[in-house]
Amino acid sequence: MRILLIASAALLLASLAVAQPQHGLNLMPMPSSVQPGVGQLPVDRSFSVAITGFRDATLERGVHRFVAELSRQTGMFLKQKPADSAHPALLIHTVHGSERVQRLGEDESYELVINESGAKLTAPSPLGILHGLQTFLQLVGTTANGFAVPVVTIKDQPRFAWRGLLIDVGRHFIPLDVLKRNLDGMAAVKMNVLHWHLYDNEGFRVESKRFPKLQEAGSDGLYYTQDEIRDFVAYAHDRGIRVVPEFEMPGHSRSLFAGYPELASGPGPYTVEPGGADAVMDPTRGKTYKFIDKFIEEMAKLFPDDYFHIGGDEVNGHQWDANPKIQAFIHAHGMKNNQDLQAYFNQRLQKILSKHHKIMMGWDEVLHPDLPKTVVVQSWRGQQSLATAAQQGYSSLLSFGYYLDLMWPASRHYAVDPISGAAASLNPEEKSRIIGGEACMWSEWITPENIDSRIWPRNAAIAERLWSPPEVQDPGSMYTRLGELSWRLEWLGLTHRSSMISALHRLAGTDDIIALRTLAEVVEPVKDYARMNSLKTAWDFRGPLNRLVDTVRPESDQARHFRDSLQAYIGSGYTDRAAEGEIRTLLAAWRDNDARLHPLLEQSFLLHELAPLSEDLSTLGVAGLLALDYLDKSAPSPESWRAQQLALLERAKTPKADLLLMVVAPLQQLIEASAGQKQKP
Amino acid sequence: MRILLIASAALLLASLAVAQPQHGLNLMPMPSSVQPGVGQLPVDRSFSVAITGFRDATLERGVHRFVAELSRQTGMFLKQKPADSAHPALLIHTVHGSERVQRLGEDESYELVINESGAKLTAPSPLGILHGLQTFLQLVGTTANGFAVPVVTIKDQPRFAWRGLLIDVGRHFIPLDVLKRNLDGMAAVKMNVLHWHLYDNEGFRVESKRFPKLQEAGSDGLYYTQDEIRDFVAYAHDRGIRVVPEFEMPGHSRSLFAGYPELASGPGPYTVEPGGADAVMDPTRGKTYKFIDKFIEEMAKLFPDDYFHIGGDEVNGHQWDANPKIQAFIHAHGMKNNQDLQAYFNQRLQKILSKHHKIMMGWDEVLHPDLPKTVVVQSWRGQQSLATAAQQGYSSLLSFGYYLDLMWPASRHYAVDPISGAAASLNPEEKSRIIGGEACMWSEWITPENIDSRIWPRNAAIAERLWSPPEVQDPGSMYTRLGELSWRLEWLGLTHRSSMISALHRLAGTDDIIALRTLAEVVEPVKDYARMNSLKTAWDFRGPLNRLVDTVRPESDQARHFRDSLQAYIGSGYTDRAAEGEIRTLLAAWRDNDARLHPLLEQSFLLHELAPLSEDLSTLGVAGLLALDYLDKSAPSPESWRAQQLALLERAKTPKADLLLMVVAPLQQLIEASAGQKQKP
Repeated sequence: MRILLIASAALLLASLAVAQPQHGLNLMPMPSSVQPGVGQLPVDRSFSVAITGFRDATLERGVHRFVAELSRQTGMFLKQKPADSAHPALLIHTVHGSERVQRLGEDESYELVINESGAKLTAPSPLGILHGLQTFLQLVGTTANGFAVPVVTIKDQPRFAWRGLLIDVGRHFIPLDVLKRNLDGMAAVKMNVLHWHLYDNEGFRVESKRFPKLQEAGSDGLYYTQDEIRDFVAYAHDRGIRVVPEFEMPGHSRSLFAGYPELASGPGPYTVEPGGADAVMDPTRGKTYKFIDKFIEEMAKLFPDDYFHIGGDEVNGHQWDANPKIQAFIHAHGMKNNQDLQAYFNQRLQKILSKHHKIMMGWDEVLHPDLPKTVVVQSWRGQQSLATAAQQGYSSLLSFGYYLDLMWPASRHYAVDPISGAAASLNPEEKSRIIGGEACMWSEWITPENIDSRIWPRNAAIAERLWSPPEVQDPGSMYTRLGELSWRLEWLGLTHRSSMISALHRLAGTDDIIALRTLAEVVEPVKDYARMNSLKTAWDFRGPLNRLVDTVRPESDQARHFRDSLQAYIGSGYTDRAAEGEIRTLLAAWRDNDARLHPLLEQSFLLHELAPLSEDLSTLGVAGLLALDYLDKSAPSPESWRAQQLALLERAKTPKADLLLMVVAPLQQLIEASAGQKQKP
Repeated sequence: MRILLIASAALLLASLAVAQPQHGLNLMPMPSSVQPGVGQLPVDRSFSVAITGFRDATLERGVHRFVAELSRQTGMFLKQKPADSAHPALLIHTVHGSERVQRLGEDESYELVINESGAKLTAPSPLGILHGLQTFLQLVGTTANGFAVPVVTIKDQPRFAWRGLLIDVGRHFIPLDVLKRNLDGMAAVKMNVLHWHLYDNEGFRVESKRFPKLQEAGSDGLYYTQDEIRDFVAYAHDRGIRVVPEFEMPGHSRSLFAGYPELASGPGPYTVEPGGADAVMDPTRGKTYKFIDKFIEEMAKLFPDDYFHIGGDEVNGHQWDANPKIQAFIHAHGMKNNQDLQAYFNQRLQKILSKHHKIMMGWDEVLHPDLPKTVVVQSWRGQQSLATAAQQGYSSLLSFGYYLDLMWPASRHYAVDPISGAAASLNPEEKSRIIGGEACMWSEWITPENIDSRIWPRNAAIAERLWSPPEVQDPGSMYTRLGELSWRLEWLGLTHRSSMISALHRLAGTDDIIALRTLAEVVEPVKDYARMNSLKTAWDFRGPLNRLVDTVRPESDQARHFRDSLQAYIGSGYTDRAAEGEIRTLLAAWRDNDARLHPLLEQSFLLHELAPLSEDLSTLGVAGLLALDYLDKSAPSPESWRAQQLALLERAKTPKADLLLMVVAPLQQLIEASAGQKQKP
């Protein structure tokens, strides 16, 4: 009976979890204050917007985009012409302009009041208006009488000033149109920093006019020109998003040495071909700093943001250890080790940045007693370093727990709060140094095709964590609102839902992908670094990324819904016929799927590896249906049968083709439940 | 038994229809000569291209796009670097350059020879190479051992020199990114003319620097700048596509009079607001021709193509009749009627065009004995006018039968051959004057969201009709290859398959669209001009286009597959269990769908109108299942039951919400079949 008690507890949690905020508005991130009213404001073809108070081109472009997005969302051809400010559907009032270069901590607040005769959006500056317009768009619903927004009063401002997304374009180049639609997505969930990881060992992605061999030798021709970057930064600025560039130093920078080998600590030569050598800058030579000075001078002009990220992570020191001159330098300067040498390097770097009016940022490895307190520390190795940095007087932000490439479910990211763990016990002043967080999209396994699906919708859960009050933390409500947001994000051109279909056609080589999709919907890529760790040879960043693992979603909605239905069924004492029906339909589809999929698996080399996974799914379908039959008949399943099934489940738990079958755990629950007597409803 | 005989005949036709070309290659349009071989050439990550002979930037860009498309299609990161010409996977050889401005009738031929060690593509000029590269892309398949192309020798050239697609951007503006992806689609099926219908009564879409009120008063701010047009024309040229602009004169041009009312035959004022007056140019005043001269001078520079389309269709003459000065002019010049006046206008227009080195084109209404033979006539009113024009010595092309806005099935367009009907009996010289045809995408019901789904994949059937030898005409093979092509077109960014999903979310206002989609998959928009004709008030081009009819596909694949399964089942003497299973699954899904869909229909104002349609579908599901039961039991269905069901079917045939339920006809067949005894297998 213990099993049933556990199941029952799980159900209780689940039913708590799906509780929505009382007002039931599908907003994400949840505003800091929502006062629902009665009634609604129609959004019909006469919808109009008027602006009073301050206005500038940024604001006007923002309103223009809003009307265009509302048109797309509703399928109405709304007029762009500004309305008479006496009777607009939406009146926008702004007090003053935003900063020319958006500043950290700039006021982003807004107030949105909707009543049955009109709506009013006010904000100190266009920055708040942009956020308020996104809230308005999320409020627009299809009702029985037309499109409408509900009567409501919203007062809103962010909890953290730094709400970022890192995109790594070093390992795999991501074209600007893909990045731009992701900026649109960020704006939709009120994120305000794009952290642009612009190069790594595998590729240098920025045009330097001063040092052209950087992009010429350091990339395969895939890089952004300076004109493109200026346009991109302006595009982000229009959406209330700062662009913080990252230039990795002294490590993670092999692509830099392809053109300028003299900067490295080892002899070279260096290339960006797969399997290239590990390499680090030589911090002992004046030449290195001269290069950095000139390079930063050029980049500082290109990227207007106050902050400049210098990386600083994962310097393993092998090249430094192997270079006698560097070791002699360490000795001569009274340093204890490579860490001290990196701190020395960082101090000199910080001075150069300061000269070019930039505030230095680095990963948590940069933390060192010699580091000036102006430096911003980004924690990736754990929450402890965040607390330590804040305690030592540094501004800091959290990325540990927000790595999108680790393929965690949204709920797991959502549960990570910057002010928790070690940070929870900081004093208020120390806590105030924690300025926010950043989701990270590292691109080892990323292509322009799959990147949207790795970022969205999960990134929205992190965006909410960083914007909304800390009390907003119910995963059930989060998933409900995330589901709603997810299809709305499609209006922006994001392909996180649709890209899998094209990829499945490629995998199958044919139009009929029904059976393949059935399998794809219940698997997830292996988690954490399991894929990298399972490689038998060195990681090859030029290798094809066209397997099923490259396209299936990081989190299976279908597996989650199956778990929910199963909870409902078990929780009802096996009497919930609707839930049982859904479970049976899915189980039967899985049972029959291998027979349908098998011919396809043989035809396509990309699908061969899926055969064991497909067999497992069918086996699970059969086992689940039998367990249901036992429960229907109120006959306990034989222990030997259960043992056999549980062994099969054990086998099905093993990753195959770098994929996990996500319905194993709930099926285990079902099979175990079939042993017991009916639970009281 | 008569019914069964008919069914049997239908089956016979169907089985003939699905016969594929013997080589089974999924090419579209089918090349003029295909000699299949044995074996295949692998396409792996070492794939490389080399160029010998003539080369220029157009060719290099074409090859660059080819490699990028192949990368996208395969999910491999192929290198752009040209290969050593001694051992490339694909060797390209070109004899000479293409014309700077692509000319009608320019050699588009190519030869593609693939054997197991490599492929060679040769062509007189880059134009043929572009076509050959598209053929290569279509040949790439996913096999058991990897991506590969089959060993084959293809010699190919077009049947007609003019293979066009008209896109009307006057009624509803279409942004350039949408047009560009459609150019990509056209290039994929070897179409070579974009006929750009640049204005109509409802909007003027080109920037004129000379007459800026054209776009300022004549549009709602949605038009193309001259820089954008130059970029677009270059984009098309890179893909072997000519851009022929159409400037409607003297009718269909109200938007022109919004800024320049003095050109019209009536007093005005004129606006582009819905419900504006009918208006025609005044061909009696010198001022009109002065304007036209200056306007054409400007546009002739912007559009480098030799041809210039002046519209000339549907001049109803009301304004001319109502204007005494115009009637006096007709009388004074010895003209008989308005037609003579239009001919006079066209003659003067032709002289102006000739002065600016342009060849005049017009719709078939321009045909008049006074018209110079250099004018090209485009037939839209019927095939007779095509033959007449050719007979009278004019070059002519066919659009009658190729109107995509009429929502015909692909097979119906496919059956229309330019050299058929009246044209079939022309002599060879006359026939040679028929230079091709054009699919037409008129935009009364078109938005940037749904345009791809109205053009694709059906446009590919027309492209094949215009490219391939006339013997290629089997609709079964066409549909097989069209299905394959359709998902491949998604790689180009076309949204003809995915856009419906977003639209269904809008209609439902929620994430759960399964039941709505089930209905959407079996309906089609009403055909021909039925939607326009059913309007109770004047057509309002600013009205929302967000109903189900605006998003469902012009041709239901599911209804076609259902018909095919039913044919197979009936043809087998009701013994084909696989076919019966498929039919039963679909019928059961339809039967149960109304109950699932009903709550949604009530929640959304956009779905209310679908209630009767949804009920019909469920009723049909029930009837079909009962008919199957009778057939399974070999018991003839009672006549009274059949009569009742056929009455229901009759009701279900009536369009509802401007939609047709496409499974009525096959169900009627099934119900009628249930009367008879089993047919011998």
